[in-house]
Amino acid sequence: MPELRKDPITGRWVIISTERGKRPSDFSREEVEIKGNGFCPFCYGNEAKTPPEILAYRANGGDPNTSGWTVRVVPNKFPALGIEGRLDRQGEGLFDKMNGIGAHEVIVETPEHNKNLADLSEKGIEDVLWAFRDRMLDLKKDRRFRYVLVFKNHGRAAGASLEHTHSQLIALPIVPKEILEQLNGARQYYEYKERCIYCDVIRQELESGTRVIAENEDFVTLSPYAPRFPFETWILPREHESVFENSPTHAFENLAKALKLLLTKTDQVLENPAFNLVLQSAPLQEPSSDYYHWHIEYMPRLTKVAGFEWGSGFYINPTPPEEAAKFLREAEVANPVHA
Amino acid sequence: MPELRKDPITGRWVIISTERGKRPSDFSREEVEIKGNGFCPFCYGNEAKTPPEILAYRANGGDPNTSGWTVRVVPNKFPALGIEGRLDRQGEGLFDKMNGIGAHEVIVETPEHNKNLADLSEKGIEDVLWAFRDRMLDLKKDRRFRYVLVFKNHGRAAGASLEHTHSQLIALPIVPKEILEQLNGARQYYEYKERCIYCDVIRQELESGTRVIAENEDFVTLSPYAPRFPFETWILPREHESVFENSPTHAFENLAKALKLLLTKTDQVLENPAFNLVLQSAPLQEPSSDYYHWHIEYMPRLTKVAGFEWGSGFYINPTPPEEAAKFLREAEVANPVHA
Repeated sequence: MPELRKDPITGRWVIISTERGKRPSDFSREEVEIKGNGFCPFCYGNEAKTPPEILAYRANGGDPNTSGWTVRVVPNKFPALGIEGRLDRQGEGLFDKMNGIGAHEVIVETPEHNKNLADLSEKGIEDVLWAFRDRMLDLKKDRRFRYVLVFKNHGRAAGASLEHTHSQLIALPIVPKEILEQLNGARQYYEYKERCIYCDVIRQELESGTRVIAENEDFVTLSPYAPRFPFETWILPREHESVFENSPTHAFENLAKALKLLLTKTDQVLENPAFNLVLQSAPLQEPSSDYYHWHIEYMPRLTKVAGFEWGSGFYINPTPPEEAAKFLREAEVANPVHA
Repeated sequence: MPELRKDPITGRWVIISTERGKRPSDFSREEVEIKGNGFCPFCYGNEAKTPPEILAYRANGGDPNTSGWTVRVVPNKFPALGIEGRLDRQGEGLFDKMNGIGAHEVIVETPEHNKNLADLSEKGIEDVLWAFRDRMLDLKKDRRFRYVLVFKNHGRAAGASLEHTHSQLIALPIVPKEILEQLNGARQYYEYKERCIYCDVIRQELESGTRVIAENEDFVTLSPYAPRFPFETWILPREHESVFENSPTHAFENLAKALKLLLTKTDQVLENPAFNLVLQSAPLQEPSSDYYHWHIEYMPRLTKVAGFEWGSGFYINPTPPEEAAKFLREAEVANPVHA
């Protein structure tokens, strides 16, 4: 018998279709491969082919827009939003619009074309996380922006157009709908219980253990109770904090470990799947809150989203999260935390 | 300058990325083709290979589960939900679940394997619409069900696994999130204005004309102001009605005309794209309301939904709806309404 489950934060129901029960090998999909042919604007020597860099880490110094960097942030050459101008909110009869003001940046995670994020050292991944933080702190100063969404598209099926490993961020003049729903759900729970719902979820999940994939000193990696997608996975900080960029130094180190472990395990169990990764943090202009809890969501692209999902906002997930968690928990990866 | 636009009903913002401004030929995608090789359970003679039929139209009579039908409805062989049992709502600590009770049916739109929905005669399409209605009226009698979502996945990129043209419906014990958002938005507007927001949208769109694609006696076909996807199109009844299955007879005839015209135009302009079609109607157990307005949403699959969309609930649409409407409005189709 399939099960209907409700995400306790957003109230979104999903269908966990246990009878279709898909194992990792049941999904037909393209494996993501690095082909490495053709010109790449993110490789050393091609720094002039991107817009001028916004940030770069260079351990041994060196001029901007030259080689020698380890992580490099540049404006997206084809930005979804424009950085210059005023919001100019206006109506058009019963419709509402404003200028598409925002920032759209690319975080090149390594100069090495033949590496994926999972292949970087823990220190390499940590640097990428520091770059996210540095950019968020900087963009926060622009009072037009209410939210920065950091995300990663890996593989064509996940929407990536360039194969050289990179993340992106978009700063928005509006708090996006998905975050508003999480904030509202978490706030309502807090008003009722005076506890953070994510903290309660973590506590319950650690007690039951069936959906836990991994843990370290600072982070818990788990399959959520009502995942939209097969093998959807969340990484949550144990310590309550609503704002990613306010995290302590050791959190960056341990998040890098948790992320490397998850990506290594999913690459093994799901055979290098295309995936999306999103950082969910509180809105920019708000102080840390007691009710929201920042986290990372990992979504491999194994199934197609179709008419039912678009028309209902419901999701049909053919893999129960307990099974997904078991596969990932039991995947043995060679010395993953020190690779 | 890109534009941020808000859907007046759900409050969902989208980014209309005018500078990327994509024309129909700019999208890379697979054209949907009927290959016709291999066994097909939806062809004449294979009636025994599906679960026993629930409904079939047979102009010249004939036994159930034999050939001779024009439209045939069968249970989905791999249903997402099960029809037997009780909902049995229960908690699991702070989580909520219930049994996956529901109906999942397939509407085979024609016995002809080599035809798409757009290729059927207007009468043929009208029969499909009558089948939707008949099934909704029947499923409504089951008081466990709160909603029936009718949808169509056309082409692999849209999630279709069988190429023989068909639609599906899923009856749910819950009103889905997407519909709740539409209902809430429309109710709020009604409380404020005492008018249906969809009726107001139709009035404004017909006056301005820039987003109108086609109209007939009963229906208006238009590009919505804040579409999630390039070439997303809505078909709305001119006459206010919240419940699809309460529509008058002439509406079925004219909806078939509007749908055939839209699909013929999009097949021409977008070169037989994969698409999803969803019927958005009011919840089952409610009488017709003054504030909601049933309609059809057509979404060709031209772009990939990626991390930004999943993390934000925002959509980046590279084709302004005014341009999409112009392409579709001006597409000349050979005698479409009498094909």
